[in-house]
Amino acid sequence: MFPLNTWYVAATAGDVADKPFGRKICGRQMVFFRGADGQVAALEDWCPHRGAPLSLGRVVDGRLVCGYHGLQMGCDGRTVAMPGQRVRGFAPIAAYPVVERHGFIWVWPGDAALADPSLLPDLFWADNPEWAYGGGLYHIGCDYRLMVDNLMDLTHETYVHADSIGQAEIDEIAPVTKVEGDQVITSRYMHDIPAPPFWRMALRSNGLADDVPVDRWQVCHFTPPSHVMIEVGVAHAGHGGIDAPADKKAGSIVVDFITPETEHSIWYFWGMARNFKPHDAALTASIREGQGKIFAEDLQMLEQQQRNHLLHPTRKLLGLNTDAGGVQARRIIDRLLAAEQALAAAAPAAALGAAAAAPAAAARP
Amino acid sequence: MFPLNTWYVAATAGDVADKPFGRKICGRQMVFFRGADGQVAALEDWCPHRGAPLSLGRVVDGRLVCGYHGLQMGCDGRTVAMPGQRVRGFAPIAAYPVVERHGFIWVWPGDAALADPSLLPDLFWADNPEWAYGGGLYHIGCDYRLMVDNLMDLTHETYVHADSIGQAEIDEIAPVTKVEGDQVITSRYMHDIPAPPFWRMALRSNGLADDVPVDRWQVCHFTPPSHVMIEVGVAHAGHGGIDAPADKKAGSIVVDFITPETEHSIWYFWGMARNFKPHDAALTASIREGQGKIFAEDLQMLEQQQRNHLLHPTRKLLGLNTDAGGVQARRIIDRLLAAEQALAAAAPAAALGAAAAAPAAAARP
Amino acid sequence: MFPLNTWYVAATAGDVADKPFGRKICGRQMVFFRGADGQVAALEDWCPHRGAPLSLGRVVDGRLVCGYHGLQMGCDGRTVAMPGQRVRGFAPIAAYPVVERHGFIWVWPGDAALADPSLLPDLFWADNPEWAYGGGLYHIGCDYRLMVDNLMDLTHETYVHADSIGQAEIDEIAPVTKVEGDQVITSRYMHDIPAPPFWRMALRSNGLADDVPVDRWQVCHFTPPSHVMIEVGVAHAGHGGIDAPADKKAGSIVVDFITPETEHSIWYFWGMARNFKPHDAALTASIREGQGKIFAEDLQMLEQQQRNHLLHPTRKLLGLNTDAGGVQARRIIDRLLAAEQALAAAAPAAALGAAAAAPAAAARP
Repeated sequence: MFPLNTWYVAATAGDVADKPFGRKICGRQMVFFRGADGQVAALEDWCPHRGAPLSLGRVVDGRLVCGYHGLQMGCDGRTVAMPGQRVRGFAPIAAYPVVERHGFIWVWPGDAALADPSLLPDLFWADNPEWAYGGGLYHIGCDYRLMVDNLMDLTHETYVHADSIGQAEIDEIAPVTKVEGDQVITSRYMHDIPAPPFWRMALRSNGLADDVPVDRWQVCHFTPPSHVMIEVGVAHAGHGGIDAPADKKAGSIVVDFITPETEHSIWYFWGMARNFKPHDAALTASIREGQGKIFAEDLQMLEQQQRNHLLHPTRKLLGLNTDAGGVQARRIIDRLLAAEQALAAAAPAAALGAAAAAPAAAARP
Repeated sequence: MFPLNTWYVAATAGDVADKPFGRKICGRQMVFFRGADGQVAALEDWCPHRGAPLSLGRVVDGRLVCGYHGLQMGCDGRTVAMPGQRVRGFAPIAAYPVVERHGFIWVWPGDAALADPSLLPDLFWADNPEWAYGGGLYHIGCDYRLMVDNLMDLTHETYVHADSIGQAEIDEIAPVTKVEGDQVITSRYMHDIPAPPFWRMALRSNGLADDVPVDRWQVCHFTPPSHVMIEVGVAHAGHGGIDAPADKKAGSIVVDFITPETEHSIWYFWGMARNFKPHDAALTASIREGQGKIFAEDLQMLEQQQRNHLLHPTRKLLGLNTDAGGVQARRIIDRLLAAEQALAAAAPAAALGAAAAAPAAAARP
Repeated sequence: MFPLNTWYVAATAGDVADKPFGRKICGRQMVFFRGADGQVAALEDWCPHRGAPLSLGRVVDGRLVCGYHGLQMGCDGRTVAMPGQRVRGFAPIAAYPVVERHGFIWVWPGDAALADPSLLPDLFWADNPEWAYGGGLYHIGCDYRLMVDNLMDLTHETYVHADSIGQAEIDEIAPVTKVEGDQVITSRYMHDIPAPPFWRMALRSNGLADDVPVDRWQVCHFTPPSHVMIEVGVAHAGHGGIDAPADKKAGSIVVDFITPETEHSIWYFWGMARNFKPHDAALTASIREGQGKIFAEDLQMLEQQQRNHLLHPTRKLLGLNTDAGGVQARRIIDRLLAAEQALAAAAPAAALGAAAAAPAAAARP
């Protein structure tokens, strides 16, 4: 169960270049491509002719040409042309609202009439020359909420990431969780502790001593449907921690966009935005490589946790204080799901959204 | 759904040599081997002793010896002997009607009483010294009818095989489809066009200029259950096209036998028969290699089309004029299926065919 | 269907060292580890916190520390501690009775209250300096009873293992099967025959001529749930066979513990115990390697036999005199299964056993 009337990251801007790009998002096979003026379109990956995947075709003059028999599809899901055919009566396929912003392609899998670009998250660090961003993508076989749980309870760093960002001091400070509207914020501030390896590297990269006590912070921000931005960093101890002057700290934002592929698999877009040495491309690459290794450590845990949950689907879990971030996030998700169900009950056809624009209609000819 | 009371290609003659050969055909696990006089037998791949696969055994003196405990099976599905046992009461296993002809092993998966070798297709080019044949086999995860559609609408060449046999001119000439009894014929004749790469190679191989305009033809012949023979070729323009004299053209027959393995997978036997330079083994090998590469281009398209159809099993497809060949072929297949169902309803036991000769009987001892 | 109130081999003693060890046994995900005094514990592989697999954690001071958020689990399935938490109210997880004996870890997947170490098989050769043991593990996709059948009818050696331990003379002597309580014994004695390759090697290793006629024996002992010990060997002909003096024979015990993983897959622990040259480690390694190759020959046969049985789940098999060992073993297994079902019907909760100690309780928080 995932909300559909919301924006998900479907791909990075670079994934959708001169070829069509196929990806399953929220159970829907989608194809992404760029129209004549370079804007991104998102359609069902279904040719109305014989049901072939349009993503195996090519883009010619901003039209998506089916790679099987040459049907030419427009950005709106309506067939533009096909060799030797009159196409006016061809059934349209679903066109999903899609926006390219902040280096990502965002898609709205639900009711197109409700899509509102103003609901896109504001990534203040993107397109800002004082900030640099590097990231990657993992495909993981788990419910998207297990990854939200993961990111909203960073005590796992001590155990899953013991060699890089984990340290015993994390366990010693309880996090504080608060809910502000549809946002959940879980914070942990640690004072006068040694920096773990990853942060020693970051201090050095920032021209700071790495062998002195630091104040460390972790502030996790969940926003629906499944975005988690985490302010993280260390400052030389006693200078104000997260509020210390720039020459006393190394901080960044861990960026996590979690997009359901199916009920039990996700596209996990992870990355880090930083505002120190933003023009140092080698540092960006180095951080990206380090973060990629660290975040890969979660995969096996999440997939086997999912396996366990499928074996015992109704078994009760604990909701400890450290779980408050994930628990509150799930409450917000559940509220969104209930609202969508209410909407669907009130107006079934519309609420099914864009994906139903070309419904199953009749027996195959 | 596939017809059962019909002949399918199960293997090439060479596949069944001195060892038993196992293959699933139309959902039935079968084993093929050669009896004492070299004739091919086709049986259920089930040892009546403990249900082991006979295909893991060996052939001794024309008997199929089970590789588990040595039961000796005859070509008729009756146990001949077993060390230390009296075998007279052993239940027979299903023996499928099977014929070796034209270099292929043909099997009749349905009611053995209805099997009629005179229904085998006449491949006039086989066993003819003026013709050469080369071919191969692909296993593809799709309904056999998707491959029939593929072969009865060659407009796909322009898109799937753009670098070899495709050319824009194919799209410009509408094919003509006619039905003659249980045969569907879809023809396309193109005049005064350049030859695409594959046919330039064929012209050269045949000692003909490859840089002059040609007339090109494609004549697809569907016969049930799922055989498609396609007359293809080019002639120097203005000499009569398909009817041009031999020294003005390069032509061949594309051979396609499509055998269901399961509802959603096939054994696709493809090849080419030609009557120019038939004794040139290197040319045969070269054509075979080229055709293998070209036909491999269809695999991904067909498997993803199948994936799409499984996601939307009842969604309506278009039936355009270019689809007429496939649509008419499906009508004939549907008629055969309906006839088999009527037969089954009238006489359930017999209509189930050979596969039911050793029915599930009782609880396991 | 497998008995649960019985001892299965879960692992070798060496498998459970300083790290937790996860394995699915009888459909239950289990984790094995060693407590503070080195004794083995077996628990559900489920952290009561968030359902993560405990087997991805580590062992610290005899406690199993969850690798996700640091919950510390005791050997009894009760949480001992967790950073920053009071754990007294945490639900326990199932603890399975487990015993380390004879070099193996034995687990009782059923009702813990019924677990009785005195029911463990007595392996007189283990921990005996006059005997040596070597063995290995195969994972095979078949019902555990197909492997019991395999081992209780050694006529298959002639066909599956023709190059090593098979010989035509096996087929010529019918085995004799008798039932003694819950034990099934199938014996075959062959007199004055040549030794096959494996046994010629064993004779040579034992300092005996390998080119003289021998008496050969195979005495298979099945005990529930699925243990098969086979006395095998050869003696120079005419010296008493299995009862010949030690300097006239080479004999050993083939050791087979078959542990269901699921309904259709097993952990197959195989090995050989011998009492000649027990201190010759190179000989142990050589025999182990040879046995491993021979026993690997059964895998394909068993997995394809299983595939056949799944296609025809109720189809009748033959029960010949050579099958008597397997048939009798299945009768004993069926009796155990019926007894467990009767127990479950009489007292459902208790009979469900340890695995139900932490039942599915409520909707996920």
